[in-house]
Amino acid sequence: MHETHATDVSILGLGAMGTALAEALVKAGVRTTVWNRSAGKAEALVARGATGAGSAAEAVQASPLVVVCLFDHASVHEVLDPLVDDLAGRTLVNLTTTKPEQARQSAVWAAEARIAYLEGGIMAVPSMIGQPGASILYSGSEDVFRQHTALFDHWAASTYYGEDAGLASLYDFALLSAMYVMFAGFMQGAAMLAPEGVPASRFAEMAAPWLTAMTGELAGYAKVIDGGDYTVPGQQSLTFSNLGLFLEAIAEQGVSAEPLAMVQRLIRQQVDAGHGTEGFARIIESLKAPASE
Amino acid sequence: MHETHATDVSILGLGAMGTALAEALVKAGVRTTVWNRSAGKAEALVARGATGAGSAAEAVQASPLVVVCLFDHASVHEVLDPLVDDLAGRTLVNLTTTKPEQARQSAVWAAEARIAYLEGGIMAVPSMIGQPGASILYSGSEDVFRQHTALFDHWAASTYYGEDAGLASLYDFALLSAMYVMFAGFMQGAAMLAPEGVPASRFAEMAAPWLTAMTGELAGYAKVIDGGDYTVPGQQSLTFSNLGLFLEAIAEQGVSAEPLAMVQRLIRQQVDAGHGTEGFARIIESLKAPASE
Ligand SMILES: NC(=O)c1ccc[n+]([C@@H]2O[C@H](COP(=O)([O-])OP(=O)(O)OC[C@H]3O[C@@H](n4cnc5c(N)ncnc54)[C@H](OP(=O)(O)O)[C@@H]3O)[C@@H](O)[C@H]2O)c1
Ligand SMILES: NC(=O)c1ccc[n+]([C@@H]2O[C@H](COP(=O)([O-])OP(=O)(O)OC[C@H]3O[C@@H](n4cnc5c(N)ncnc54)[C@H](OP(=O)(O)O)[C@@H]3O)[C@@H](O)[C@H]2O)c1
Repeated sequence: MHETHATDVSILGLGAMGTALAEALVKAGVRTTVWNRSAGKAEALVARGATGAGSAAEAVQASPLVVVCLFDHASVHEVLDPLVDDLAGRTLVNLTTTKPEQARQSAVWAAEARIAYLEGGIMAVPSMIGQPGASILYSGSEDVFRQHTALFDHWAASTYYGEDAGLASLYDFALLSAMYVMFAGFMQGAAMLAPEGVPASRFAEMAAPWLTAMTGELAGYAKVIDGGDYTVPGQQSLTFSNLGLFLEAIAEQGVSAEPLAMVQRLIRQQVDAGHGTEGFARIIESLKAPASE
Repeated sequence: MHETHATDVSILGLGAMGTALAEALVKAGVRTTVWNRSAGKAEALVARGATGAGSAAEAVQASPLVVVCLFDHASVHEVLDPLVDDLAGRTLVNLTTTKPEQARQSAVWAAEARIAYLEGGIMAVPSMIGQPGASILYSGSEDVFRQHTALFDHWAASTYYGEDAGLASLYDFALLSAMYVMFAGFMQGAAMLAPEGVPASRFAEMAAPWLTAMTGELAGYAKVIDGGDYTVPGQQSLTFSNLGLFLEAIAEQGVSAEPLAMVQRLIRQQVDAGHGTEGFARIIESLKAPASE
């Protein structure tokens, strides 16, 4: 094997995402060693200049910086647990999607094995890696983040959230959750209009700028939430935000109102608790103190 | 009473919104007559140059163009039904929030009474009237819309959706529904982060640009929906969009996952029906053909 350099990187896992990550490094001229459980996935990368490793152990030994992008938390430990001695003294960056609690467990495991550990949450699909708009959230060892930021920037915009290894995943999940719920809201509108023969594309043309404009309201809600006083003047009240008329109209269109009915439940829980005159932002309390159902 | 001019406008209903609408016209130099059920609300407007009417009938008689902005469909008909003879031959613009079916009923009622009828859905709060960003959606008589567009533009950007008087309200409700669901998605993320002491404002700073970027996905989903083929390649599959890990993480934070669980139900309904390998856009089918619950 060739001598290892401080800037060499090994990537374990060549699924759609691992391949995109490896490609970006090879393209940037980084000496990259790659490994995948099933054979064949390394070939195209090796043809472009990556080094193929015959085993996960060989891949770990090839570089001071080891990046894993496998299916889940369990597969990461299936691959890495037998290699703790090889990993000791090296740096491990875990870009596999895991829960905050799992990331924290991996951080404890790494500390015990003297592995410098950083966790990352990828806010991008594989085709976005190395392109503007891609973002990766990191947490865990700040030293690792500072030392390798320039390298990480070959993949995406890199942001560090703190020493708690679970934070990257928590922010990642929070942003993705907000996105999925927004998508369901778009579907609610498109489904309402469909019976009139309105194409979803026509609604998308209206909804995209409208929802963009309405993200301007989030800072105001957040300010009220952080202030802890939902009675401050100038807010739209919970009673004013009664969605009953909308829910009736959706039912009259013959489609399901499931997304909007969810919002109505959050509102109702606060109104029923006597907070109807307070601001709409108070619906977060229905999530923070869930009703026993 | 003074002679009426073709451009005179009467506004019935001086709640928060009716007052804002009247103010914008007075400011634009339009001869505006105003009326409100309870006394006192017209005073400030009269001081600025509006004409106060002693009764709804007097207000209707004062102008060829009558605008109503009352509480709801019932209050509109409580005020206007006794005045059909006065309204005959005039133009009525109804900016009260009503369901599509109610708007259609009002259009039939107006046609029978020889009243030219236009319905409007206001996409703004009162303080936005006359400011950039405000928008009013219209449907019903195209003649009325074309003739008065310049006047309507004193309030907001004016868009016409078709002769079916119910359309303005339908688009209005669809956009507002999407917005409320998006707000609940933001609350989901903010509630997840709250136990770590992350202020909602910090999340809002991240979520606003992120959700804005993700509105870029809507056109793609819409194209798949309109194409009617959820198996076209290049889409994120429903099985890939399994939100199980997110839901577990939210539960581990001790907060309610109600907004995201709603999305998971829409996904699951399609996966259970055997469409797991098809694209995420297919969740709209869970709304178009609701499961019997
Ligand atoms: N794709 C995206 O849009 C996206 C976005 C953000 C985050 N991510 C995350 O990135 C990670 C990888 O995603 P992907 O899209 O690359 O997934 P993928 O295409 O399904 O690839 C999964 C990879 O994990 C490997 N693997 C699974 N179980 C294993 C085990 N027990 N031992 C060894 N290797 C194992 C697979 O190896 P084989 O080839 O041998 O099966 C393959 O290399 C996931 O955690 C995903 O959530 C993906
Ligand atoms: N405010 C917003 O942000 C907003 C945004 C979009 C659309 N809108 C729509 O605009 C309309 C008016 O809203 P608003 O904010 O102005 O409401 P508001 O401040 O509560 O005013 C309601 C108005 O309706 C009148 N009214 C109620 N019932 C009546 C009846 N039976 N007979 C005669 N007058 C009656 C009230 O008269 P009194 O003064 O005598 O009670 C008052 O002028 C509503 O349909 C609302 O949905 C409002």
